[in-house]
Amino acid sequence: MIDHGDVLYLQEHLPFFAKLDQADKRRVLDAASKSAYQQGETIHTRDTECNGLVIVKSGQLRAFFETEDGKEITLYRLLDNDICILSASCVLKNITFTVILEAEKDSVLFFIPAVFWGNLTARDIYAKQFAMELVAERFSEVMWVMEQIVSKNMRQRIAVFLLEQSVLETSDILTMTHESIAKNLGTAREVISRILKYLENDGIIKLSRGQIHIVNLPKLKEIGR
Amino acid sequence: MIDHGDVLYLQEHLPFFAKLDQADKRRVLDAASKSAYQQGETIHTRDTECNGLVIVKSGQLRAFFETEDGKEITLYRLLDNDICILSASCVLKNITFTVILEAEKDSVLFFIPAVFWGNLTARDIYAKQFAMELVAERFSEVMWVMEQIVSKNMRQRIAVFLLEQSVLETSDILTMTHESIAKNLGTAREVISRILKYLENDGIIKLSRGQIHIVNLPKLKEIGR
Repeated sequence: MIDHGDVLYLQEHLPFFAKLDQADKRRVLDAASKSAYQQGETIHTRDTECNGLVIVKSGQLRAFFETEDGKEITLYRLLDNDICILSASCVLKNITFTVILEAEKDSVLFFIPAVFWGNLTARDIYAKQFAMELVAERFSEVMWVMEQIVSKNMRQRIAVFLLEQSVLETSDILTMTHESIAKNLGTAREVISRILKYLENDGIIKLSRGQIHIVNLPKLKEIGR
Repeated sequence: MIDHGDVLYLQEHLPFFAKLDQADKRRVLDAASKSAYQQGETIHTRDTECNGLVIVKSGQLRAFFETEDGKEITLYRLLDNDICILSASCVLKNITFTVILEAEKDSVLFFIPAVFWGNLTARDIYAKQFAMELVAERFSEVMWVMEQIVSKNMRQRIAVFLLEQSVLETSDILTMTHESIAKNLGTAREVISRILKYLENDGIIKLSRGQIHIVNLPKLKEIGR
């Protein structure tokens, strides 16, 4: 159930909302639900295969793709007010892959169920256009990720990853395990640990239990370039 | 200039054509042009940055993405009657990357200019829907490519590539240089040559000047799996 504040929030943050007719506005608000997730939780609604439209009211989600052999590739992150469309892939024509969402921080999310979203976009051109443009935006982000994977060696990719995390956390001290970096970059923990150790020996970072401290930011940026 | 046969071809092969109004049908046919390309040529129309919609009447195109450091990643191939939408990226909202097309065989192509296409999709919902669904389809193909890159080691990727080529050429004898395989897979020629040599030593392929002969297809499939 959503309350009056939630209604105001959705009216303001769903870009297509204003253009819906009155009946569909009502239906969207009736269909919407809200849930809180704790850091580390995977986002599942009742239908675990397809969450539908996910709106991040607050928090941070990681959107990733899982390869057949169990590697994870981080595709993009969702911050406050971001909307995930690929979580509704089951009702997106021609999208045949599945994106998994995981809470990287405690998060409050709104959901518009997939079946409802599929019906709405079938009859409302603005909702459909919104969906398609968001798909295109994510496609561009994924191309950037692919470029990173192909162009940069693992040392560069780790540097870029640590820099991104530092911006997201607004801190030089990152709380994360080698295992989670390995998952993000689709490689083995040993590879990450080895490279982090090199970076520590070069005086760029300092490792301690569960934490990575960036001590030479300019040098890290240089590696990531 | 397109002739009567071309008009019939476009009417039949542009999925959105039948739903256009009479004036737009006329405009599409007036805007369309036809060109022949030789094997190895890069596809450029007058505006080299953005070819617009490209329809493959006959032949074979490779669609690839070039990374900043000059590596090529093959995203998909276009065969007879296939349509490339990402070649119109300049008029696709939120598509910020550029896809390059190259003729892998002598090809005859139709072009619908980008600016015209942008205008058409802005006012015609069927053309827009066609564009967006094709973007989603390519997105799914690109995710598959990314999975290949992340999941498979280079030996597997070469095996998959040779198998694909063998299907495309309908032959066990592939005419291609190590350099072109390297470009396709975004790696160095030396890496390819070394792995091909291994595969030859294992009795799976046989190398000769400019040609690769697949001599043990079941084994190659096993590697690619």
